[in-house]
Amino acid sequence: MTPAQQQLVAAVLERFGPKAVTTDSDAIAPWQSDWRGRYHGNAPALLSPGSTAEVAEIIRLAGALGVRIVPQGGNTGMVGGATPPADGSALLLSLRRMNRIRSIDPAGNIAVVEAGVILANLHAATAEQGRRFPLTLGAKGSATIGGLVSTNAGGTQVLRFGNMRQLVAGLEVVLPDGSIHDGLSPLKKDNRGYDLTQLLIGAEGTIGVVTAATLRLYPAVLERAAAWVGIANPEDALKMLRMMEARTTTIESFEIIPGEVLGHVLDHIPGTRAPLAGQHAWHVLIESVATEAGLEPPAALLERLLAPAFESGLAEDAVISTSESQVEAFWHIRDSISEAERAQGPAMQHDISVPVDRMPAFMLSAAAEAERRFPGTHATAFGHLGDGNVHFHVRAPAGMDRETWYAGDGPAVSRLVYDLVVAAGGSISAEHGIGQMKRAELERLSPPARIAALKAIKMALDPQGILNPGKLVSLAPEAGTP
Amino acid sequence: MTPAQQQLVAAVLERFGPKAVTTDSDAIAPWQSDWRGRYHGNAPALLSPGSTAEVAEIIRLAGALGVRIVPQGGNTGMVGGATPPADGSALLLSLRRMNRIRSIDPAGNIAVVEAGVILANLHAATAEQGRRFPLTLGAKGSATIGGLVSTNAGGTQVLRFGNMRQLVAGLEVVLPDGSIHDGLSPLKKDNRGYDLTQLLIGAEGTIGVVTAATLRLYPAVLERAAAWVGIANPEDALKMLRMMEARTTTIESFEIIPGEVLGHVLDHIPGTRAPLAGQHAWHVLIESVATEAGLEPPAALLERLLAPAFESGLAEDAVISTSESQVEAFWHIRDSISEAERAQGPAMQHDISVPVDRMPAFMLSAAAEAERRFPGTHATAFGHLGDGNVHFHVRAPAGMDRETWYAGDGPAVSRLVYDLVVAAGGSISAEHGIGQMKRAELERLSPPARIAALKAIKMALDPQGILNPGKLVSLAPEAGTP
Repeated sequence: MTPAQQQLVAAVLERFGPKAVTTDSDAIAPWQSDWRGRYHGNAPALLSPGSTAEVAEIIRLAGALGVRIVPQGGNTGMVGGATPPADGSALLLSLRRMNRIRSIDPAGNIAVVEAGVILANLHAATAEQGRRFPLTLGAKGSATIGGLVSTNAGGTQVLRFGNMRQLVAGLEVVLPDGSIHDGLSPLKKDNRGYDLTQLLIGAEGTIGVVTAATLRLYPAVLERAAAWVGIANPEDALKMLRMMEARTTTIESFEIIPGEVLGHVLDHIPGTRAPLAGQHAWHVLIESVATEAGLEPPAALLERLLAPAFESGLAEDAVISTSESQVEAFWHIRDSISEAERAQGPAMQHDISVPVDRMPAFMLSAAAEAERRFPGTHATAFGHLGDGNVHFHVRAPAGMDRETWYAGDGPAVSRLVYDLVVAAGGSISAEHGIGQMKRAELERLSPPARIAALKAIKMALDPQGILNPGKLVSLAPEAGTP
Repeated sequence: MTPAQQQLVAAVLERFGPKAVTTDSDAIAPWQSDWRGRYHGNAPALLSPGSTAEVAEIIRLAGALGVRIVPQGGNTGMVGGATPPADGSALLLSLRRMNRIRSIDPAGNIAVVEAGVILANLHAATAEQGRRFPLTLGAKGSATIGGLVSTNAGGTQVLRFGNMRQLVAGLEVVLPDGSIHDGLSPLKKDNRGYDLTQLLIGAEGTIGVVTAATLRLYPAVLERAAAWVGIANPEDALKMLRMMEARTTTIESFEIIPGEVLGHVLDHIPGTRAPLAGQHAWHVLIESVATEAGLEPPAALLERLLAPAFESGLAEDAVISTSESQVEAFWHIRDSISEAERAQGPAMQHDISVPVDRMPAFMLSAAAEAERRFPGTHATAFGHLGDGNVHFHVRAPAGMDRETWYAGDGPAVSRLVYDLVVAAGGSISAEHGIGQMKRAELERLSPPARIAALKAIKMALDPQGILNPGKLVSLAPEAGTP
């Protein structure tokens, strides 16, 4: 620990007590690596403030002492954005003790929630009041609101409700100078200059520490239904989506799954069953949710929406859920894809987006190009077709071990995929963010004006580089960026 | 004209021809003052680029020469944000020649539109394709997309569709260094660092010139209906709104109008008629729109929603429109309020917001406080109750002329209103922006951290202060701010 770090740790201990700081390496260990085990850092201390005032004081002191800070929530990120540097130059700042739901206003459809609240706990608390916070994702049992805000999280309900960005009505943030930006007041209209709340969403803790958020709520789910549809190709899936969107705005999810990927799930995941009797090249999972009494039940809506898809030959076969447990069984297949694909062998995984209309062609042409350029590899894409966002996997040639793949062609495969994404007008990070994993690629593939603007904003708000060093954008060119 | 301005004008004339520049003072005159005649500036030349590349080249040259530029769209702003400085130190940059709708994708519900497109023209073009761009406001026949983006415009359909911020899927912007930020690709998910698009929305042309926008479209209106309801007080109006919101998400507008204000409209605006037979202390105008075939017709929905409001005694009387012309008659009353109020005498007008739940109490208490502190004045509030946004007018004592009022108590009245707004957790600019009108009040009433962050962002992106000088935030303290 540097003398400055020691000073900060001592000050935090003295002012905020032993709950607010630990230097026990066993206690810190789980938070020094990301949950996928890809990034390993080293933090000599873990600070755990219990209030916004304590966060502000810690950041103020860190600035005065020149100590770097890595904010962290549930540590469920995918891009190493919450992992400290390996050289011990930064302390971890956990927001997990700040886990109060400050208020839920069911009539106003608003909840004010501290950064450390776990998503599943918010789901439960809002459900008790007949309300719903619609964002959900696999890590909901660990992911915290602060992290979800700072990464502008997506998930499976984006088609209807948008990303975290659309669900945040206000933020409380500690800025790098230790001042508190109180933007929690839930104003539907507020035009007082540059929108700091929007700037902080998705900023990955590099220009402020989110301490609380005002979130938008929606009516609770009364009933839901899902359809599993066999189709010939992604283009037909898009046509079916457009056909449905022309008739309703209540589709929540529209996920695409290749037939072979379904096969991997059935092979590797115990208790899964094929939803349809026959074989299909592609599958689509569609969810519809009723939140208003007296309207068409979701299963009836799905049946009505599927009728023209059958008439026009887009749908080859389909089954509509008849129970909540059947809906869950469909989603269990979808949510098991990552695990099943891992069992198939090591792969480079890419969370990418292109304009929705271009996605069907992109999925096929990019897969063909990757396989052509890297013989023996196998590429597949699956996921949120309705959002123009798929998870694009390129599997190593059969028999190759993980380390050889990562050290060999793997990175070149990723560069190819990202080049193709950019050529299609897309984004190299759809929902996972940049963190440390994609920083070099962001710099390589962005127009200089964009990078210059990102750096200027970082410099303007965090001129000392106190917050989350080495993530998202670097202030100076660095050698050996991974 | 300064030598540097002359150089810029000559360069623009030489490169882009006579359409791109005028120094004819008669031609410039209409654009030097705001449409309400409150702000008067002086620009020695009006530049009118015809393409994004021309805008970029002009901004690049302006930076090189140190010439300040005031971007302008339809010049329908309410806060002097597009009026040049009085000292002739800046040139006007009109985006009005850039008036192409580049594309409309009805299946993808996306339009790509240049900054100079007039809102009403976009409405017409999208309607031809069975689609709707839902934002609308009184100035739609002149207001341009670039201005609507740069002011994060609101309007009457915010309750359902949000502000401009929620309707922009991407932007093309010329940054102060003359580089082009091409963010038009309509990505539903994109987490590549700080969101420049969101930062530019509502930035009032101070850190970039919006040249085009990708906008979200919605299904066209099939049928609409409106209800006019007499109620006892604003608190009952809010209860009625909450009752309706618990049953549907399709209410588009929920406007509140004091009985006396309705009286002024009936007195001053020819051809208006009272919607209800009796007298009511307050009135509410509610609009519902059907965009999906086969669902409940909007008039039936309104009737169903009003039933519990009558049962619980919230609604005193109501009439539901039976024709489109009746809907228009209701809106004509609402849209004529400003004109009718002007006829009643000079007033200080305030576009303010507070959290929706606090608005009923605020409307009454703030009006009482203003009248108590400034004897003889009369305060009224009307407007978008559903958005927590009202237009709060304080009329001068009877017989006082406009100039005496503005030079006398008027500004102190406004400071009082803004103090009360801030105390209620509200915003001193709900939908009109800051411009030059509210800059001093923004500085007075914002926490230092907020102002410091706004200035840091302005400095970071426009260090020379080329774009829209004197608007939104000043780079240095200035004497004699109006």
